[in-house]
Amino acid sequence: MKPTSPLLAAVLACLFALGPAQAEGPYRNADNKNPNDAGEGSYPVPYQMPSVAGITATLLKVRGYMDSVTPTRIVHKGSGAAVTDLQNPVADAIFEPSQGDFGILVYEMGVVHSGLLRAAAATGDRSFVAMTERHFNFLKASKPYFAAQEKLYKLERGNSFARFLDPRSLDDAGSMCAALMRARAAGVGPDLSDMIATCSDWVANRQYRLKDGTLARKRPQAESLWGDDMYMGIPALAEMGRMTGQRAYYDDAVKNVLNMSGYLFNAQARLYTHGWHAGMQDAPNFYWARANGWAVLAMSDLLDVLPKDHPGYPRVLAQLRLALQGIAERQSGTGLWHQMIDRNDSYLETSASAIFTYVIAHAVNQGWISPAPYGSIAQAGWSGLQTRITAKGEVQGTCVGTTLAGDMVYYYNRPTSKDALHGYGPVLLAGAEMIKLVTNPKLDIQYRLRTYHYVPKGGQTDYREHQ
Amino acid sequence: MKPTSPLLAAVLACLFALGPAQAEGPYRNADNKNPNDAGEGSYPVPYQMPSVAGITATLLKVRGYMDSVTPTRIVHKGSGAAVTDLQNPVADAIFEPSQGDFGILVYEMGVVHSGLLRAAAATGDRSFVAMTERHFNFLKASKPYFAAQEKLYKLERGNSFARFLDPRSLDDAGSMCAALMRARAAGVGPDLSDMIATCSDWVANRQYRLKDGTLARKRPQAESLWGDDMYMGIPALAEMGRMTGQRAYYDDAVKNVLNMSGYLFNAQARLYTHGWHAGMQDAPNFYWARANGWAVLAMSDLLDVLPKDHPGYPRVLAQLRLALQGIAERQSGTGLWHQMIDRNDSYLETSASAIFTYVIAHAVNQGWISPAPYGSIAQAGWSGLQTRITAKGEVQGTCVGTTLAGDMVYYYNRPTSKDALHGYGPVLLAGAEMIKLVTNPKLDIQYRLRTYHYVPKGGQTDYREHQ
Amino acid sequence: MKPTSPLLAAVLACLFALGPAQAEGPYRNADNKNPNDAGEGSYPVPYQMPSVAGITATLLKVRGYMDSVTPTRIVHKGSGAAVTDLQNPVADAIFEPSQGDFGILVYEMGVVHSGLLRAAAATGDRSFVAMTERHFNFLKASKPYFAAQEKLYKLERGNSFARFLDPRSLDDAGSMCAALMRARAAGVGPDLSDMIATCSDWVANRQYRLKDGTLARKRPQAESLWGDDMYMGIPALAEMGRMTGQRAYYDDAVKNVLNMSGYLFNAQARLYTHGWHAGMQDAPNFYWARANGWAVLAMSDLLDVLPKDHPGYPRVLAQLRLALQGIAERQSGTGLWHQMIDRNDSYLETSASAIFTYVIAHAVNQGWISPAPYGSIAQAGWSGLQTRITAKGEVQGTCVGTTLAGDMVYYYNRPTSKDALHGYGPVLLAGAEMIKLVTNPKLDIQYRLRTYHYVPKGGQTDYREHQ
Repeated sequence: MKPTSPLLAAVLACLFALGPAQAEGPYRNADNKNPNDAGEGSYPVPYQMPSVAGITATLLKVRGYMDSVTPTRIVHKGSGAAVTDLQNPVADAIFEPSQGDFGILVYEMGVVHSGLLRAAAATGDRSFVAMTERHFNFLKASKPYFAAQEKLYKLERGNSFARFLDPRSLDDAGSMCAALMRARAAGVGPDLSDMIATCSDWVANRQYRLKDGTLARKRPQAESLWGDDMYMGIPALAEMGRMTGQRAYYDDAVKNVLNMSGYLFNAQARLYTHGWHAGMQDAPNFYWARANGWAVLAMSDLLDVLPKDHPGYPRVLAQLRLALQGIAERQSGTGLWHQMIDRNDSYLETSASAIFTYVIAHAVNQGWISPAPYGSIAQAGWSGLQTRITAKGEVQGTCVGTTLAGDMVYYYNRPTSKDALHGYGPVLLAGAEMIKLVTNPKLDIQYRLRTYHYVPKGGQTDYREHQ
Repeated sequence: MKPTSPLLAAVLACLFALGPAQAEGPYRNADNKNPNDAGEGSYPVPYQMPSVAGITATLLKVRGYMDSVTPTRIVHKGSGAAVTDLQNPVADAIFEPSQGDFGILVYEMGVVHSGLLRAAAATGDRSFVAMTERHFNFLKASKPYFAAQEKLYKLERGNSFARFLDPRSLDDAGSMCAALMRARAAGVGPDLSDMIATCSDWVANRQYRLKDGTLARKRPQAESLWGDDMYMGIPALAEMGRMTGQRAYYDDAVKNVLNMSGYLFNAQARLYTHGWHAGMQDAPNFYWARANGWAVLAMSDLLDVLPKDHPGYPRVLAQLRLALQGIAERQSGTGLWHQMIDRNDSYLETSASAIFTYVIAHAVNQGWISPAPYGSIAQAGWSGLQTRITAKGEVQGTCVGTTLAGDMVYYYNRPTSKDALHGYGPVLLAGAEMIKLVTNPKLDIQYRLRTYHYVPKGGQTDYREHQ
Repeated sequence: MKPTSPLLAAVLACLFALGPAQAEGPYRNADNKNPNDAGEGSYPVPYQMPSVAGITATLLKVRGYMDSVTPTRIVHKGSGAAVTDLQNPVADAIFEPSQGDFGILVYEMGVVHSGLLRAAAATGDRSFVAMTERHFNFLKASKPYFAAQEKLYKLERGNSFARFLDPRSLDDAGSMCAALMRARAAGVGPDLSDMIATCSDWVANRQYRLKDGTLARKRPQAESLWGDDMYMGIPALAEMGRMTGQRAYYDDAVKNVLNMSGYLFNAQARLYTHGWHAGMQDAPNFYWARANGWAVLAMSDLLDVLPKDHPGYPRVLAQLRLALQGIAERQSGTGLWHQMIDRNDSYLETSASAIFTYVIAHAVNQGWISPAPYGSIAQAGWSGLQTRITAKGEVQGTCVGTTLAGDMVYYYNRPTSKDALHGYGPVLLAGAEMIKLVTNPKLDIQYRLRTYHYVPKGGQTDYREHQ
């Protein structure tokens, strides 16, 4: 039984259950100057040192795409014609729909703005925040119109501005709220104090909580916790702490990190299960990758502003370290992570991979975790992400909006789409942080023996046996 | 490198080790009335709410197939001609062989009868137990013939009735014994007290045991435990307890649950390894799916009859919960489970999947485990199982009879067959219990955001943010 | 949707994410005399009882290939012409390069010699050590030439004899050092006391260590531990203990087993991570298979010579048992192990599989672990290995030299090659030990119910229920 071609051999290996063969990938590492090096093969992703120029070009493509598909106009719902009379609200006036249904007030757009702000900071290129300014100016300008429309027509969720006129959930409020405060801190955009007041009041005071103060929801069960809500709640609380200087916001943010982790974090697997319901016990875990992403992004965002002398600081940091260990340990051979992070037969998912890449790179840059092996892991993550970004700046392979479910058929078969906005903000965050990582003045990134070693500057390594 | 077709892309993704791609399956969810919903893709199995009518039709198909392939006649071994003289036994008289070698006294047939009894109860359709009545009447009628044949010819294992004339193992006795007592309790079939006496004596008093009383075997090592024996022994003991009211049977059943779990249950993985040998230490675990099925089915069967005030009740229930958590956590993205339950590169196996679906659904219906997420998990299990049942009522994809082995090459490469009887009883059990689950008066099954939520009646959920 | 061919069905199953199908493999078990047995399918590897003759033939092929591709001549680097004047060293004199770059002084060749010595012992065929004698005689004869060359020309790493003239690492010294002492103990080859003195001094006294005495490296970080160094250091220390009778060598060997295991062994997974760096905490683990191989081979080699009354003996044995459990539990359905031992989507790797097969078989033969299930596991390992050895005696599928890295893209995509010498010694070891296993006088290897049971002689098994 001798297959006559490598392709056939690979297919037969699969059919005969011989397990995965050593595969040929489309990429070779251009950092290896020996094209015939028998000690190195090919890769499924561009495994090589990312350059600042390359990362920046990728960020600009994504920014350009986002900018081009997120109009900021008021139009008539049926015709799409611009609404020109802004004094007399009409019932069919809406935000101009974007290609791909990228809402300008949805929580995913909050992550996009946060990513744009970091990209501007990392590159020094203010064009990244031009889109944020455009959106935020439009929000300031159009809010009175939609508020008046609501009084007249009671459209409720049909009102384009509903999330800030009548917030009903953390999804409505938290992520965009954090973005508004970050833009304000960075001097980007107009004064949106009124919107900040609305959304922060929702997160801090009005969202349903468990008796112990943990942010919760009344769906899909009467009393449920969602891992996603770590991000939908904690960064907004953290930014309120920073903006107001009031310690109570930090206390609430820390409490939610610790409580949520208590309910959802499996210390053995070092992963977060997607959710919890009151009354449930001995239930199986669903390690949905993106929820793990929201969890670590929330902790990272909190640590960015939490005073180091806050008693919660070391506890949040310890929890972030544990989660990053569990996450890093599941990185695939492509640098990406799987939809169910512990299941290598579920698909490779972009948004979670981008969040992980960002948080790991950021944690190295902040000194929260060691450069080895985490620098290499972040770099590998970016290698994988590059294959998901098209020439037009679209981000592919992101799982669409996903509810808290109870079976694997649902999770495994969620579709992916370039129209899932959840991937765009994380890619911007990841790229911005990768620029800071590869230019980190405290690190000496060594390309040795066909791989990359992130060595603290001043660390004396010795390759004399190879010289 | 741009593949020109999705098929090619998928194959290349595989060859280039890009990991599993987001796959297209043959099924769409008919409960989603929007055929263009970008928020839902396709599925490898029929992911939708099962109807009572649909489940019942499936059960009837399987019952019909079983009925048609299990003759109850005495024939001459060589010619297949009917034996007509029942007064003078001949040496070559045997049970008429069934297509697929479905023996009417084998342990797998005990599970079939138990499934038929439950199907009759769940549907109210007595036709399900017509087959049980036919078999049991035949057993009653033919036993004297084969007993006389044995006296004359000493055929030993060549005697069709050997398992009840000369039982030699738990496989011979336990499962059928439990079925005989269940039929008796349900008023189905003739009085088979003599057969019950034989088999229960074997299980309770004659089977080899470890010194601590745990049911054991002298194969493949001199002193071995088999996870399968939880089912081959415990339900019979439990039914003896119910039939006789003697507490000692319950005590023995509980002791065997706890002892077997002590030897075989890995508390970290929350799974049962297939077996144990005296003298073995630090040995690897073999999480064969069907053995895990037998373990949880045994515990479930015991809890069905064990008095709630028995001191073992909470301990058995706690152990069942742990095992169901470990099992549920390994459900695949098709709703089925893998041959080696923790190995997603081993094949998807029907019999274990059906047992798990039954026990999980039953445990929800009995209030032993919470409806969320277990209701969804049972439903997903049934979705997967449906793809394994042919129009004729054959059950495909079941691992054939499997011994307690010591290497993965053996376990991974056990063939599957529609002639493996092990799958039929569990499918009947699973379907019957699914009918009870989807009509459970204590549950409100909500189809929300493209998935299914099993909510206790009276639980106040709130989807106002989506309205 | 009915696929029209099994091939198409398999491909579709893959594309539709239906999970792995029950596969057809190219092999049937010839020990099963019933070619139509529905209870047995086909295998991806030759699953059957290996014969001494078959194993010996395989060993001879590998020995023959090794012998043929490892010349022992001094040649001019450019022309390849033999150097004939051995009195006046020239700068371009080198060991004649071998096909496949199989250096005669590299650490991998130390494993080859150790394997040849064991093959000779197991088969009684001295031809196995003829190659060792040839190499060692050449080393003795050529060392003065290269020493003089070095004085004249200061070639450093360009000197073919550099590893023994100027050792710089454990890779240079340890493995070959152990092989030299083993040959000496077996009376094979010339007196190489001077070389033994050089390499053992390096291992015992000159290699960089952590403050606690653990053998360490200054790469890739300033202070790093490599799992590989258990093999590069401990067997040499152990053999020094045996050769000199000085207990301090044993103490050092034991200390390194325990310290290395403390840093690298994950007690939950029961596997060794590839490495550790000073200052690292909560870092992800990289369970590279070959490093796990070196770890267990080192412990096994140590136990072979460590006096049983040494206080470290039970501790090393306990650690070996734990590691073998973790390793055995990850064996694939082909009998081979994966490149990342816990990742079934990484390729099946030969060298680690061979080391595991050897150590498991050896541990059974030595009575360190129980015959069940470990005998079956070793046999399955050999079944898989056989598919990796060509008619010419080449060993395929071995991961090339691999550094201590920090990301999965690197590890998953290391190429494999028949020119990776790392696979040859382990295959020789595995085959030699398999001969001892299948002829082990303390074992009764039973082929029963289509699989293999390693039963201690005298164990009374009972298959009466099947008779």
